[in-house]
Amino acid sequence: MTTTAAPRIARTRVTPILIGDPPLLNSQGVHQPYTPRLIVEVQTEDGVTGVGETYGDTDYLTIAEALAPALVGRPLLDLNDLTGFAAEHSPDVSGRARTEVNAGGLRGSRTTNKLLASVVSAFEVASLDALGRTLGLPVHALLGGKVRDRVEYSAYLFYRWAEHPVADAPSDDWGAALDPAGVVAQAQRFADRYGFGSFKLKGGVFPPLEEIDAIRALRAAFPDRPLRLDPNAAWSVDTSVHVAEQLDGALEYLEDPTPGTPGMAEVHRRTSMTLATNMCVTSFAEIPEAFASNAVQVVLSDHHFWGGLHATRELAAVCRTFGVGLSMHSNTHLGVSLAAMTQVAATVPELAYACDTHRPWQTEDVITEPQEFVDGCVEVSDLPGLGVELDGDQLARLHERWLTSDVRDRDDVAAMRQVHPEWTMPPAAHW
Amino acid sequence: MTTTAAPRIARTRVTPILIGDPPLLNSQGVHQPYTPRLIVEVQTEDGVTGVGETYGDTDYLTIAEALAPALVGRPLLDLNDLTGFAAEHSPDVSGRARTEVNAGGLRGSRTTNKLLASVVSAFEVASLDALGRTLGLPVHALLGGKVRDRVEYSAYLFYRWAEHPVADAPSDDWGAALDPAGVVAQAQRFADRYGFGSFKLKGGVFPPLEEIDAIRALRAAFPDRPLRLDPNAAWSVDTSVHVAEQLDGALEYLEDPTPGTPGMAEVHRRTSMTLATNMCVTSFAEIPEAFASNAVQVVLSDHHFWGGLHATRELAAVCRTFGVGLSMHSNTHLGVSLAAMTQVAATVPELAYACDTHRPWQTEDVITEPQEFVDGCVEVSDLPGLGVELDGDQLARLHERWLTSDVRDRDDVAAMRQVHPEWTMPPAAHW
Repeated sequence: MTTTAAPRIARTRVTPILIGDPPLLNSQGVHQPYTPRLIVEVQTEDGVTGVGETYGDTDYLTIAEALAPALVGRPLLDLNDLTGFAAEHSPDVSGRARTEVNAGGLRGSRTTNKLLASVVSAFEVASLDALGRTLGLPVHALLGGKVRDRVEYSAYLFYRWAEHPVADAPSDDWGAALDPAGVVAQAQRFADRYGFGSFKLKGGVFPPLEEIDAIRALRAAFPDRPLRLDPNAAWSVDTSVHVAEQLDGALEYLEDPTPGTPGMAEVHRRTSMTLATNMCVTSFAEIPEAFASNAVQVVLSDHHFWGGLHATRELAAVCRTFGVGLSMHSNTHLGVSLAAMTQVAATVPELAYACDTHRPWQTEDVITEPQEFVDGCVEVSDLPGLGVELDGDQLARLHERWLTSDVRDRDDVAAMRQVHPEWTMPPAAHW
Repeated sequence: MTTTAAPRIARTRVTPILIGDPPLLNSQGVHQPYTPRLIVEVQTEDGVTGVGETYGDTDYLTIAEALAPALVGRPLLDLNDLTGFAAEHSPDVSGRARTEVNAGGLRGSRTTNKLLASVVSAFEVASLDALGRTLGLPVHALLGGKVRDRVEYSAYLFYRWAEHPVADAPSDDWGAALDPAGVVAQAQRFADRYGFGSFKLKGGVFPPLEEIDAIRALRAAFPDRPLRLDPNAAWSVDTSVHVAEQLDGALEYLEDPTPGTPGMAEVHRRTSMTLATNMCVTSFAEIPEAFASNAVQVVLSDHHFWGGLHATRELAAVCRTFGVGLSMHSNTHLGVSLAAMTQVAATVPELAYACDTHRPWQTEDVITEPQEFVDGCVEVSDLPGLGVELDGDQLARLHERWLTSDVRDRDDVAAMRQVHPEWTMPPAAHW
């Protein structure tokens, strides 16, 4: 028996990119033509490279650029204290923290710890990818093994414009969806093209009665498929209760109807509607109050928020212990994150809901062979690591776009104000 | 990039053994001269063998012997659904379940799931050992990496007789410990020989006032060392409150003073004493009520009870999330379990208490080089797998002992009745 020297990290690289995004509408405004993401690479002293992806706004980039050089020399497999290490080697971003959760906070509260976790997640995923490649094992095997061969995703329906209202913006052929008929047509196209068996509508865009009508139209068009509605906390408690009552029996769950744990708890108490969240429970610190008050019945995990794949499995264990459901949240992302989501989702036995993904809305990627959705599912790769390969040309092209653009942060409010200068977010208390 | 075929399990072996045990006293009676354990081996198709250890009483053996052949052909790294798989391939032991927790239930409630988990843990550990050996990585690396190089253990003090009162029993030179002076002398020997910096006294043996005196004698002899007292739920709530008040400031924690979550919660509410448990929280199902009522402030995990090393890490995540402390419980065990305990303990950042171990009381082992305790700590092995080697000769010898003995279950009550035929467990309500 010999003592094993685990490989160490020899090089790291952080590449900010801008990716094209359609004019998808939400409570905050509209997606900008381009949104920032970060691609992170970790290379071992043996020359094996792993890749990770996370949010790319300025704060994330600032932390990532400080953490990347500090990681050089660390054992690749030292993942259990990565968050603590990151806290010691990151710039002070506490001034950027913002704890209130409202319709403007699509990602929930914004604590220093969550910013750190979101960056750590990319390095953790890259490390697992490199470790898997080194060992010849898929990432799921490094997490105790897959319990399923395919991970089911939900179609992510959006109200949207046909085109961005600015010049030189990316375009697609999906057309507008601004009423129930448009939503149903979009759902039909998603079902036909990708086989999705569940539909989630991003709400909080139009008055609630119109969105109720959209859900009813989906229910009529797809009688047997699970439906979800997510207004990103745009509604008051009373409005949420009204919508929940109107859609009783029509929804698999209602997602973040109203801001904050007490409000969510009140909506559930008054309606018994199953409530999901990726806004009021986005970190371990938020769990005790939310679970004690039965504010959420399904937590939508996001391995970026939660600090990586090990942390996602820990969240799954906490939810299992307390009888709370688990599924997966998505923000605009590419195939590296989709691979990470799929690998960890494959290891969690009690994942009983189709996961969210924005990925079908993106028309570009940084991997050589973007995943396909078949019957709404992504196959769980058994290739070493994440099972994806970075496309260096695409990465360089999207980084060049970042270099030559002044877009540094996602700002759906600003994008909307280019069209409606008087735009403010919906007055939740009035709806 | 090539598709990786993970190694499969080609052979499994379950070996029941009897190990010598000193006449240690507890609320139930006295340790028998020999106690059963199970040694589990898992061999891959490549000929790599991993080892695990668990409880060896009849029910565990029955399940293990049914599960062992069913595991042949499974991928070695399919650990996330091992418990579900075991449930499908185990005999019905529901008739053996017993849910009440009292001083007779040193291992807490005895549910079907916990019996299964205790057997699964041995196969999970053996699989991780084999996987680590296959990959050239220590088990801690398969769990996200160690965060410490040494794991601290506590001296486990027992009231005891000098000798078993029966012929042909194993013996040692520790002598009797039946009063405060004897306990202090035992603690001094543990400190001198192994460097233990914390002391736990197994109580519930003598009237509580005598055990209070023993703790006070330890406090006087070792003014700066953490002390713990564990009467295995032998006391009423009122007695527990009295002891907690008498020992206020003298104990790091009081362990399982009284049976059941409501009783524990009342003791804590009335005294603010930090309460630890390995009896009222021994499975995930028991957590919500116990945490909601603040019945326990420290959970003493036991990777056997909880279903293995991944499950222990999940328990750690649940405790971290709810601000509950974590340490480690021990029953009579050998070096294979000590290696597993040390590997997983090394990966849990928030392990803030020295772990329990009976191991220094055992004079035999089934590994070639039993671990040493230095400054109360066991070094975290970086060798592949658990870092221990089975000693085939010792294993055969202890199995031969099992074959030629009629001891099949641990029964401290029966052992005590050989000396005191009228023996019943202490009347908790009267103490």
